[in-house]
Amino acid sequence: MMPKRLSILGVGLLGGSIGLAAKSIESGVETVGYGHRRETLEEAARIGAIDRWTASAAEAVQGADLVILCTPVGLFGSLLAEIAQSLSPGTIVTDVGSTKRGIVRLAETGLPPAIRFVGSHPMAGSEKRGVGYASADLFDGALCIMTPTARTDTRSLEEVEDFWRRLGMTTTRLSPEEHDRRLADVSHLPHALAAALLSMQDGASLPLAGKGFRDVTRIAAGDGGLWRDILLENKDNLRDSVRRLQQHLEDLLRRLDSSDADAVKTWLDAASGRRKGLDSPPH
Amino acid sequence: MMPKRLSILGVGLLGGSIGLAAKSIESGVETVGYGHRRETLEEAARIGAIDRWTASAAEAVQGADLVILCTPVGLFGSLLAEIAQSLSPGTIVTDVGSTKRGIVRLAETGLPPAIRFVGSHPMAGSEKRGVGYASADLFDGALCIMTPTARTDTRSLEEVEDFWRRLGMTTTRLSPEEHDRRLADVSHLPHALAAALLSMQDGASLPLAGKGFRDVTRIAAGDGGLWRDILLENKDNLRDSVRRLQQHLEDLLRRLDSSDADAVKTWLDAASGRRKGLDSPPH
Repeated sequence: MMPKRLSILGVGLLGGSIGLAAKSIESGVETVGYGHRRETLEEAARIGAIDRWTASAAEAVQGADLVILCTPVGLFGSLLAEIAQSLSPGTIVTDVGSTKRGIVRLAETGLPPAIRFVGSHPMAGSEKRGVGYASADLFDGALCIMTPTARTDTRSLEEVEDFWRRLGMTTTRLSPEEHDRRLADVSHLPHALAAALLSMQDGASLPLAGKGFRDVTRIAAGDGGLWRDILLENKDNLRDSVRRLQQHLEDLLRRLDSSDADAVKTWLDAASGRRKGLDSPPH
Repeated sequence: MMPKRLSILGVGLLGGSIGLAAKSIESGVETVGYGHRRETLEEAARIGAIDRWTASAAEAVQGADLVILCTPVGLFGSLLAEIAQSLSPGTIVTDVGSTKRGIVRLAETGLPPAIRFVGSHPMAGSEKRGVGYASADLFDGALCIMTPTARTDTRSLEEVEDFWRRLGMTTTRLSPEEHDRRLADVSHLPHALAAALLSMQDGASLPLAGKGFRDVTRIAAGDGGLWRDILLENKDNLRDSVRRLQQHLEDLLRRLDSSDADAVKTWLDAASGRRKGLDSPPH
């Protein structure tokens, strides 16, 4: 689907890029923005990501075919409460949250039955934040994970999948539970590790950091507020991921302690091979 | 110093780049290569990194002003034994090893008194390996850590520092012990973490990896043999680094468990600020 009226709640890097991408594909789409900072909304309008904006989320969703929640995940609850009574029957609501159990539960219990909710996680973005970095090609080649449940309307799911594909993404489906468990491993734990690696350094070590350290820690430059929400939402899975990571580190330390050079090399080669297997270009 | 005859023992990414850089600065430098693979030596000669080569390390160092050990650190012991009796009095020997306690101890006990040894760690290179990736500007803007001891000849130290600076590096000095301790934190632990992050994933999670995961794990694509040697040499420091990292992760998990959103944000913001402080361009 390409909606006639698209409501973007939260116009930062992702929300702004969605607006730019949708309008670049079909100029007839009307994009309506909502946010809490007037300067951000004005900038989003100036770059053409939104046609108009309002400081009321309830007003921003009126008459929309598709509503996308693009605020930090910690604000989803209050945002849903604010818009629930202003959505038109048949409107599809989706989101861009990096955690999915919470928003799916909130939406399925908090929205009227006539509203179709579909959970989405477009895996685009970077450590950069704000509509100033928005671009129409942010989603090109990236993956969008859909998180339907038994209550998800199949037709609406397919329409939202089609929307993300038109923006250049490939889509896949996972349950909200599996999404959060796997994302803890491939996204939330890496972020926590990058941040912990920075925290543990003393001042005299940081100047010795080379390109490798910069690569490993780059994601930790991301916004603390966004990541606070994500890690709080997924702390049970994160704890389990940390525990399993520690087991793999202990395995390495045991091999090193035994001075079994072959066993160490086998372990390192396996990881190297896996990394080389991730050979598609970064997105 | 720019030596008249430079002996490069091990002509891979680093050794090859040293040859290319030295000759680009002063065409009169004669570079002599040694290695155990004929094809590598021939390729190094073809790209102009070495003027000639020999399959004997003892022969490669004859008449050299400066000898640089560029093999994996695990081979340094046998290499020193092989060349000890063929070095001319006054020859300066240095190395490019990523760990320093071992090579400094080996050199100070294994080389004749008339030979001047100076430990170096030029922090250049990447997950790529082999002379095929060598380039004259590999060292531009990167840091070289010198690891003098009480037994290091000051004049020779200054000459080796001057050599690396001519190749475009900045230099700093640390004891071998402090070098190994700090490098465990900023280099060896990040490598172990990147590899462990790859090891712990199950097959269905890896396809969900985005740009952040690719950044975090990039270094783990490095050569298993090289890293085996490094981690084995520095396993005591690595174990301590792992322990301290775990303490920082536990700190995060405690803050998450208390659901104290401000405490989580403070922790993440501190890491984000540190990362943004590493603002010089990657090298």
